[in-house]
Amino acid sequence: MSASMRELALAARAAAPAIAALSSAAKRAALLRMADELERQAPAILAANALDVDAATAAGRAAHLIDRLRLDPARLAAIAAGVRAVAGLPDPVGQVTREETRPNGIRVTRVRIPLGLIAMIYEARPNVTADAAALCFMAGNVVLLRGGSEAFNGNRAIAAALRDALRASGLPEAAITLIEDLRRESVLELLQLSDLVDLAIPRGGESLIRFVAEHARVPVIKHYQGVCHLYVDASADPELALRLLIDGKTTRPAVCNALETLLVHAAVAPTFLPAAIHALGERGVEVRGCERTRALSPAVAAATDADYAAEFLDLVIAVRVVDDLEQAIAHIRRYGSDHTEVIATRDDDAAETFVGALRSAVVMVNASSRFSDGGELGLGAEIGISTTRLHAYGPMGAEALTIERFVVRGAGQVRHPPVP
Amino acid sequence: MSASMRELALAARAAAPAIAALSSAAKRAALLRMADELERQAPAILAANALDVDAATAAGRAAHLIDRLRLDPARLAAIAAGVRAVAGLPDPVGQVTREETRPNGIRVTRVRIPLGLIAMIYEARPNVTADAAALCFMAGNVVLLRGGSEAFNGNRAIAAALRDALRASGLPEAAITLIEDLRRESVLELLQLSDLVDLAIPRGGESLIRFVAEHARVPVIKHYQGVCHLYVDASADPELALRLLIDGKTTRPAVCNALETLLVHAAVAPTFLPAAIHALGERGVEVRGCERTRALSPAVAAATDADYAAEFLDLVIAVRVVDDLEQAIAHIRRYGSDHTEVIATRDDDAAETFVGALRSAVVMVNASSRFSDGGELGLGAEIGISTTRLHAYGPMGAEALTIERFVVRGAGQVRHPPVP
Repeated sequence: MSASMRELALAARAAAPAIAALSSAAKRAALLRMADELERQAPAILAANALDVDAATAAGRAAHLIDRLRLDPARLAAIAAGVRAVAGLPDPVGQVTREETRPNGIRVTRVRIPLGLIAMIYEARPNVTADAAALCFMAGNVVLLRGGSEAFNGNRAIAAALRDALRASGLPEAAITLIEDLRRESVLELLQLSDLVDLAIPRGGESLIRFVAEHARVPVIKHYQGVCHLYVDASADPELALRLLIDGKTTRPAVCNALETLLVHAAVAPTFLPAAIHALGERGVEVRGCERTRALSPAVAAATDADYAAEFLDLVIAVRVVDDLEQAIAHIRRYGSDHTEVIATRDDDAAETFVGALRSAVVMVNASSRFSDGGELGLGAEIGISTTRLHAYGPMGAEALTIERFVVRGAGQVRHPPVP
Repeated sequence: MSASMRELALAARAAAPAIAALSSAAKRAALLRMADELERQAPAILAANALDVDAATAAGRAAHLIDRLRLDPARLAAIAAGVRAVAGLPDPVGQVTREETRPNGIRVTRVRIPLGLIAMIYEARPNVTADAAALCFMAGNVVLLRGGSEAFNGNRAIAAALRDALRASGLPEAAITLIEDLRRESVLELLQLSDLVDLAIPRGGESLIRFVAEHARVPVIKHYQGVCHLYVDASADPELALRLLIDGKTTRPAVCNALETLLVHAAVAPTFLPAAIHALGERGVEVRGCERTRALSPAVAAATDADYAAEFLDLVIAVRVVDDLEQAIAHIRRYGSDHTEVIATRDDDAAETFVGALRSAVVMVNASSRFSDGGELGLGAEIGISTTRLHAYGPMGAEALTIERFVVRGAGQVRHPPVP
């Protein structure tokens, strides 16, 4: 019989003070050892993953799902390299973010400490097991990993390697715990442990996120959709705008920072849109447009309201001609998902209006939506992208897995000094 | 018939972009106008509050509850002064917290933006209506205020004054909305609006917090208990320790940063404790102690396990003699509420061990627990104290009502440059 979620969480929490207290050097050494173990145990990990791939193939799963699931020597090497990269990140724990001496002489500092116990709930990408464990560990946290059942054998082999490295480093193995109970009830139980779990991070499709958000009594950082927009302003450099469009829509359409909607200022639509639609068509992108778009490119299909709200995650794009910047902003406010928006413009005022009027996590001026990624934005690594305007917003790195607390040093100051 | 919670939230959200876009100067001017209106409308506010006080008196409510409810000219002047103080705070919105140019030339900045729509759910303190509204407004947010039914008439008069000031400033009144539907169902409805409400902040007794946490589908920042500890180390200056004890326990026992438990190192217990217990007794504090405490002061009642976990909020203190620093830390980890802990010591190593081993929101070295307060710690004002290790931890000021997002400025960079 497998351990209950409460037992696993209690064991992880018992390990938390030791992990929180580690020096940066000790964490880095342990992470490098984890990377070494992943490489040393590659044959076992690849064999375990092959079982998962075989089962998924026998079950007739879609090719792109099997591709996400599959490990090979190169992908496993990349996972180990990712763990080494995390070891090279700045350690957020112990960072003093503010310091002030108050008029009464007490010295108030704000210092980053780990969040505590993080529950990662994810689908069938075995790399998340190592990525999330490494990032949580670098930020001084302990982690419960609940991966998808389809990736279970590979996940277990990866977790075993990570725990071997913990043990060899003299650290409690419970700091990185893979949940082996694959019943849905175990996730539900985990999400109720509000006295033990500091944060749940679901990572996967929208239905997983909604399931977690719906049932959680623990705090959740959510990442719903990436309905990312490119707005081509009247003053845009058309070549630059086309480059952003092609990069954002076609280089990896299945990811959340891919473009889903193109908005074009009416003044440049007649010159920009036909060429852009032609370029998209050449790359296999299906275009669905508004009436004004179709007047310019009659072969384009009509876009519905649902198309403007859609996260296609595919070679499909919705296009709309707008009267001006204000209409573009109104469109994004109505249909957007607060993930990433881009403006192509040579007009600084238009850029600042666009940035100021939208509350999306990432706003780009003349840069591709595909940069909306922890690595590209300089976080070193990312555990997810928050579209919740709380705690962290946008790509989350190690720092987002810590919290600032207050440390006060005095010389006996009291709030109400006794009357002599 | 009163408007539904969804209608009120939609109206508030419609006002959000205008408030988020305000300059610091415009926000300050509007806040000063709010303070003026509170003073100008003082007769109406005091008359409305008197209705609440009369009803509570007729209902036989406890004297301390009626005292919290009651406004008088001095208290109302203090509320107006609080709003003026918020107008003088640094504006967190637009602050650039980080700036980096990536190797590909894109400039990545992190900029504070408002959270959006905040729902304050609180009990019978009418001052919260003005305090919370002012702080949310300064941070560029719109707010739905759901105060306790007992304070309703006073809250409505205060909200009317604040909205008059908004209107006179040319701003949408929906930015500060008092919910007039006092049924419990309206709170439940509000807590389900996950597409509209960015954050709920319950402020009041533990049962209110648990009710909100239990039913919320929107993010909640929780403040449960303040079971604050003072640990008197072997090396403590006894006079300093006694001063912290008296200030922490007796100056305002009903607040969350009051001390609830005293831990004393065994080496100094024989000299420190009898005098400390005598001083507490002189001030009317009931002491409940462990066996070793009672061996030193036989008149002391025996402490139970429940006493060590209790937030007395009264002139009662639990006392325990511990073998050493480690036992003090273990005690606080077991019984503490992660709010505020204090060490009295002359040993820097002991202080650092104490700070490092505990994950409480505020840790004090030789300073009173009563400084665990937004004003005292330099935040200028506070909307609450978070004991959840997410988003904000400890006293929350205006900055905690904002979030950092990414703004990227480029010159047409793409992630996958086309092969020439």
